[in-house]
Amino acid sequence: MRFDDTYSGKVFIKSHPNYEESKAVIYGMPMDWTVSFRPGSRFGPAKIREVSIGLEEYSPYLDRDLDDVKFFDAGDIPLPFGNAEQSLEIINNYIHQLLKDDKIPVGLGGEHLVSLPVMKAVAEKYDDLAVIHMDAHTDLREHYEGYEYSHSTPIRKIADVIGPKNVYSFGIRSGMKEEFDWAKENGMHISKFEVLEPLKKVLPTLDGRPVYITIDIDVLDPAHAPGTGTVDAGGITSRELLAAIHAIAASGVNVVGFDLVEVAPVYDHSDQTANTASKLIREMLLGWVR
Amino acid sequence: MRFDDTYSGKVFIKSHPNYEESKAVIYGMPMDWTVSFRPGSRFGPAKIREVSIGLEEYSPYLDRDLDDVKFFDAGDIPLPFGNAEQSLEIINNYIHQLLKDDKIPVGLGGEHLVSLPVMKAVAEKYDDLAVIHMDAHTDLREHYEGYEYSHSTPIRKIADVIGPKNVYSFGIRSGMKEEFDWAKENGMHISKFEVLEPLKKVLPTLDGRPVYITIDIDVLDPAHAPGTGTVDAGGITSRELLAAIHAIAASGVNVVGFDLVEVAPVYDHSDQTANTASKLIREMLLGWVR
Amino acid sequence: MRFDDTYSGKVFIKSHPNYEESKAVIYGMPMDWTVSFRPGSRFGPAKIREVSIGLEEYSPYLDRDLDDVKFFDAGDIPLPFGNAEQSLEIINNYIHQLLKDDKIPVGLGGEHLVSLPVMKAVAEKYDDLAVIHMDAHTDLREHYEGYEYSHSTPIRKIADVIGPKNVYSFGIRSGMKEEFDWAKENGMHISKFEVLEPLKKVLPTLDGRPVYITIDIDVLDPAHAPGTGTVDAGGITSRELLAAIHAIAASGVNVVGFDLVEVAPVYDHSDQTANTASKLIREMLLGWVR
Amino acid sequence: MRFDDTYSGKVFIKSHPNYEESKAVIYGMPMDWTVSFRPGSRFGPAKIREVSIGLEEYSPYLDRDLDDVKFFDAGDIPLPFGNAEQSLEIINNYIHQLLKDDKIPVGLGGEHLVSLPVMKAVAEKYDDLAVIHMDAHTDLREHYEGYEYSHSTPIRKIADVIGPKNVYSFGIRSGMKEEFDWAKENGMHISKFEVLEPLKKVLPTLDGRPVYITIDIDVLDPAHAPGTGTVDAGGITSRELLAAIHAIAASGVNVVGFDLVEVAPVYDHSDQTANTASKLIREMLLGWVR
Amino acid sequence: MRFDDTYSGKVFIKSHPNYEESKAVIYGMPMDWTVSFRPGSRFGPAKIREVSIGLEEYSPYLDRDLDDVKFFDAGDIPLPFGNAEQSLEIINNYIHQLLKDDKIPVGLGGEHLVSLPVMKAVAEKYDDLAVIHMDAHTDLREHYEGYEYSHSTPIRKIADVIGPKNVYSFGIRSGMKEEFDWAKENGMHISKFEVLEPLKKVLPTLDGRPVYITIDIDVLDPAHAPGTGTVDAGGITSRELLAAIHAIAASGVNVVGFDLVEVAPVYDHSDQTANTASKLIREMLLGWVR
Amino acid sequence: MRFDDTYSGKVFIKSHPNYEESKAVIYGMPMDWTVSFRPGSRFGPAKIREVSIGLEEYSPYLDRDLDDVKFFDAGDIPLPFGNAEQSLEIINNYIHQLLKDDKIPVGLGGEHLVSLPVMKAVAEKYDDLAVIHMDAHTDLREHYEGYEYSHSTPIRKIADVIGPKNVYSFGIRSGMKEEFDWAKENGMHISKFEVLEPLKKVLPTLDGRPVYITIDIDVLDPAHAPGTGTVDAGGITSRELLAAIHAIAASGVNVVGFDLVEVAPVYDHSDQTANTASKLIREMLLGWVR
Repeated sequence: MRFDDTYSGKVFIKSHPNYEESKAVIYGMPMDWTVSFRPGSRFGPAKIREVSIGLEEYSPYLDRDLDDVKFFDAGDIPLPFGNAEQSLEIINNYIHQLLKDDKIPVGLGGEHLVSLPVMKAVAEKYDDLAVIHMDAHTDLREHYEGYEYSHSTPIRKIADVIGPKNVYSFGIRSGMKEEFDWAKENGMHISKFEVLEPLKKVLPTLDGRPVYITIDIDVLDPAHAPGTGTVDAGGITSRELLAAIHAIAASGVNVVGFDLVEVAPVYDHSDQTANTASKLIREMLLGWVR
Repeated sequence: MRFDDTYSGKVFIKSHPNYEESKAVIYGMPMDWTVSFRPGSRFGPAKIREVSIGLEEYSPYLDRDLDDVKFFDAGDIPLPFGNAEQSLEIINNYIHQLLKDDKIPVGLGGEHLVSLPVMKAVAEKYDDLAVIHMDAHTDLREHYEGYEYSHSTPIRKIADVIGPKNVYSFGIRSGMKEEFDWAKENGMHISKFEVLEPLKKVLPTLDGRPVYITIDIDVLDPAHAPGTGTVDAGGITSRELLAAIHAIAASGVNVVGFDLVEVAPVYDHSDQTANTASKLIREMLLGWVR
Repeated sequence: MRFDDTYSGKVFIKSHPNYEESKAVIYGMPMDWTVSFRPGSRFGPAKIREVSIGLEEYSPYLDRDLDDVKFFDAGDIPLPFGNAEQSLEIINNYIHQLLKDDKIPVGLGGEHLVSLPVMKAVAEKYDDLAVIHMDAHTDLREHYEGYEYSHSTPIRKIADVIGPKNVYSFGIRSGMKEEFDWAKENGMHISKFEVLEPLKKVLPTLDGRPVYITIDIDVLDPAHAPGTGTVDAGGITSRELLAAIHAIAASGVNVVGFDLVEVAPVYDHSDQTANTASKLIREMLLGWVR
Repeated sequence: MRFDDTYSGKVFIKSHPNYEESKAVIYGMPMDWTVSFRPGSRFGPAKIREVSIGLEEYSPYLDRDLDDVKFFDAGDIPLPFGNAEQSLEIINNYIHQLLKDDKIPVGLGGEHLVSLPVMKAVAEKYDDLAVIHMDAHTDLREHYEGYEYSHSTPIRKIADVIGPKNVYSFGIRSGMKEEFDWAKENGMHISKFEVLEPLKKVLPTLDGRPVYITIDIDVLDPAHAPGTGTVDAGGITSRELLAAIHAIAASGVNVVGFDLVEVAPVYDHSDQTANTASKLIREMLLGWVR
Repeated sequence: MRFDDTYSGKVFIKSHPNYEESKAVIYGMPMDWTVSFRPGSRFGPAKIREVSIGLEEYSPYLDRDLDDVKFFDAGDIPLPFGNAEQSLEIINNYIHQLLKDDKIPVGLGGEHLVSLPVMKAVAEKYDDLAVIHMDAHTDLREHYEGYEYSHSTPIRKIADVIGPKNVYSFGIRSGMKEEFDWAKENGMHISKFEVLEPLKKVLPTLDGRPVYITIDIDVLDPAHAPGTGTVDAGGITSRELLAAIHAIAASGVNVVGFDLVEVAPVYDHSDQTANTASKLIREMLLGWVR
Repeated sequence: MRFDDTYSGKVFIKSHPNYEESKAVIYGMPMDWTVSFRPGSRFGPAKIREVSIGLEEYSPYLDRDLDDVKFFDAGDIPLPFGNAEQSLEIINNYIHQLLKDDKIPVGLGGEHLVSLPVMKAVAEKYDDLAVIHMDAHTDLREHYEGYEYSHSTPIRKIADVIGPKNVYSFGIRSGMKEEFDWAKENGMHISKFEVLEPLKKVLPTLDGRPVYITIDIDVLDPAHAPGTGTVDAGGITSRELLAAIHAIAASGVNVVGFDLVEVAPVYDHSDQTANTASKLIREMLLGWVR
């Protein structure tokens, strides 16, 4: 007597009912308590699922259908409000379990800090891990107003773990001078303003390597993603971001996990940002989960 | 590995996982295609569930907790877009099944026309059925621009089935002269503008009888329910509506089913209407399901 | 081949196609350039017309139908943007014409200053004119930052014309000490906070006299009228305002003109304010145009 | 005593007062009852007219002025809420009349299904009709959840009438695999993602032929048209769409009718979508009506 | 060359330029990181100041003008994002300084937890302190999902400090059964649903005592305060809250500090909530700071 | 005891506390009373400051930091509501003072007419002044509905002062035929639709000359700036506008003053427009103030 959830907006459209048989697992990380400007991304994962029912299941870009990929939507990880450290630990533990079960983690944020415990867990499993990072912001601060774990530090922290040379940032258009300098001095790749063209140059160098990909929705121009905490003019279009996803799909990298973060629905009454996010997730699932 | 739905906003807070053991069943009727003014109530049921996680489970009004009532949330009934007749038939069939299983139907609308097939099914089961109707509008038209099944006709249609003398409308502040005249001539009860005081007078006369209760959220003043298709000034407060619910709970009537309709979230950016609706549903469950 | 305007939202619902045969004339005064806080009331008249199609034509309060009143909707008076003085002159000329044709002027604002040239024209026609004024604000300043014609001065200016003793303000909850003092010293009636009860006391004293009635929508509490330039807590409900309209209808005063001003749609995404305004206009037409 | 409608937002700016003398006729088709996701396009035509007063009458793109084109704005066709079949019939009858009077039909939607009865009527008049279709979606389903007449089927249905080889779709980025396959197998033209470049290649092949053009506003990226039922990332810019309109104007095709559909104002609080739609209509009138 | 701040919205209207000479000090506490539902109250204090320029300086309720009260607006206390414990410590230190300087603290929230360190500091200064608490929620949890410092615990924590018998809650309509039971067992005063009448009974018993007053804006009905984290139907009107403020002003209690919390502007596009909050602050300053 | 304003949103981020030591001065011109369509830009300057706290102080485009530029934020110039002439005079006087003190004026609008008194004052100081104008609209009317001072006339009026040959407009996509003709006949430069490429051609011809730059935010496409009075499809992206700013910074022109006008926050609930405006101001300060 319960109506089918598959088209209900309660799980991502066409998610598989069975964890065991699935190759990838979607999970929400509804945390936004360390953001310095506008909170609200805690409601991002739920909204992305809700609007996913407006998607077609077929991608005319990739000529592939969601029926061709087995993924499970686990819902949102329950996190303790206002406690960043414990939240990160809970996420880290959960990802360890997923990886033990040989699942590809597919995270929905939440503020960008939630990517850190995921990347740490993934880095423990894959020795040779590289991270591809698309974002408006460097997120390379060592600490933010005295706090190590902040939405401004996750890329720096993962660089400390896997080495700056293994981190590739694209689309960056905001940061402190010190952050850009640190990246330069430590051999970390930063492509300012652009994503697609520099990515195409980097991808061949990562051929065959395990790669974790973290995308902050604000890499898009505010015109394409008004529903996020920090809107910063001069970003890329959703067309360019789709093309970047397809370029990765066509490359030889081994995508071992990915996330999309910082969707904050309350700032976007047309739900354009969440709709775009759900289409991006569809393309990532179809292009990256093999 | 799937996180608990009970506090996720995917089902009404504290709904029971098991249909068989439940006494009442919540279901959404996401239809809005016959409305003449502003559509959008198709998204009402989902939003009411989503915001229900903001509710406490305990009612200080009734000194009762949702743990004390077993109800199952079945999700939204899939309805064919733009086809009113078939939608009504699907709803009617579903309610027949619920009633056969001895469940109390608890409907979430959707436009008011969805109440008609529910009331018809309930009337088949209970010979002596009375209907309590709270609404800004009479909904007593015989047809609307030539169509018999419209959001303006459900109360007339059920009056035709159970007899106008068994229908009690409260809070009415909008309608055609012909509708008020028809009610008067046919012995139907209409309380204009007010709900609580006239209801208190009517309730003793319904003692022991099976009663179906249908509430259009626009019985509330627009100040209390801006998120609905037709906002009409001069309505009651949510306090008066809560008191009416409690008066029914304290009376001797036998509530055999109920619904709350016409919540249209897109017109209410604070989600005040859906939050109020979810609190009303909590009070109805706690007060009416015994 | 042009579809009927009567139900189109382009004119107030059920307005008469013919000026000559009409007793009352609705006109918009789309001016908001002297407001000190939030502009936007220039779009009030158009929105009130647009949403009027959601109204029933029949009033269950007055048992009267719009078919029983002949009124013509003339549209919005074209006014020169940013030029208050010339705008007031244009309005004044227009009202003189209406009065010469023996029409009852029914104005839609626009900021409150637009009422001044209307009242001046009406005062020239009716020697013994009284003004009933419902508002959150005194509007009794002699000038505002040096300017005589401002949204803060219209009631003072008309009091200067017809004498303060002939002005009756209700529902006032905001003003400078000097304004309240001036009113007191000059024998002008001000009822603070309340409308209905003091109005009922005043009405018998105005029996048979010609009365112009000007209502600022912000006499309503912000809960009932969020869509206005200055929202000020502690106002009356739309029920009380409806009752005040009906009390005037039942009294012996001779309503020779009236207006409803300060509806600013952009601050109210549910259009609750404009819907309420259009219902108030319906009740005023049905109750006051005899 | 009625103020001029030409600049009032009640009719499209500079529309001609006289049907007989006009070459083109604008009409609204306020229907949205078969949409599967977000309703609201029933209010599209009225909003497009309302904001048209913000337009200049002159096009610096085409060096032509609205004074140079005689078009009549007939208002919205009254349609029965929730009854798709009868609505389509009413539209079809109306268009037959327009065509009999040798007018060029210029439709404002409403959901995309409203284009079907227009195209059918036009196809009866012009033997050799071709259809140019710009849209995010294929709209090529044979039926949608069992219903033949749905917002997902109009292009398929018109292809069945005039032959798939005479239908040219541009900008498509969403659909079922079956739809793309059907198009391919039946010789229908589909340009995925792009509009301008492929259109420029197609236009010479249509030289001199009668062409009906139907544009779903969602061919634009959500950044350019957030106010529509289904927002789908990766669309074209309004600049590209303007350029496409101008390319058609400069070509040798004979535009015998056109429409713009799916503007749903409630999802766009800046009215950017309706403003863009009204500018597109101006360019189409200036470029296509000769 | 810098323009005057007094009417700029950068400080509360008419705040005094000089700390030393002021009797009361306004400060913002822009923290919202422990809320369980909707964040955003961090922007409350700035918005309350911004809209304060729409206020008159004179209160017709109290016949007193802001010129008669010397208060200083210190701006927002800089707080570390996502770190509740340290934030509370910073607030506590600041209040200790204010109290040492014999200022009356006037706090603007922020989530309700910010009141706790203020009340603790005040309780250290005044042995016989009583707390008056107006709120929709009990806020009496001992901990919330394991965390002692949460938006659900501040009243319990202060009750632990000053003794439950010295805490008086009004308007409560939401909480767990355990919270109500704890209050009852420990002699704490809770008035359910109502504020004004029970307050009038309590005030004489507090005659002459030092009292801290903490008001959660959600004690108001959502109709009167949609812009808050948790909207809960059935609250009081802003008229009743104004009357409660005036009742305290007229009583013999010695108000030694007060705050207004939980204004979250993003959920209220008409800024009705912030406007109401700024008027409430004006009345509190005029009525309570002697 | 007052908290630091530098990061408070009350002044533009990192503005210098001292007027005398500053090279440039930011001031708001909160006037919108002559706009013909949507008012609201009076709140633009305050919102631009408020959201500036979300900016980084460092520009990765220019490799320069706000610490490197001394600018003072003077707040908003108090202007008399609804009185255009006097407002212009007040602005003109203020700019004369700034120029006497050798400051570079940096204006925030407000409607575009506010640029006129600034440009007039600047033209008095610099004989050889050229004006660079980026806008969707020509603003070249000689008068607007009979009024010389209107938002539609400022560029014409300044052209009358400094000679049309010294005015360079870019990005224009809206105007009357007469305006384009006048520009052509009088040797004024107008680049239709495009900004960056034609600007690059013009800049070398202005080498060494004093240049005032006025930017109407609506030169951006509505996708990039929905929050403005007149949204007009087909504009440039914020990337192109940023590149234009950087091209000027890299050129040999001597920027002696500049402004950014027509930000109207109420039409943009994500504050994307104001955020973009504040980033543009940062880039202009860093690139143009040497």
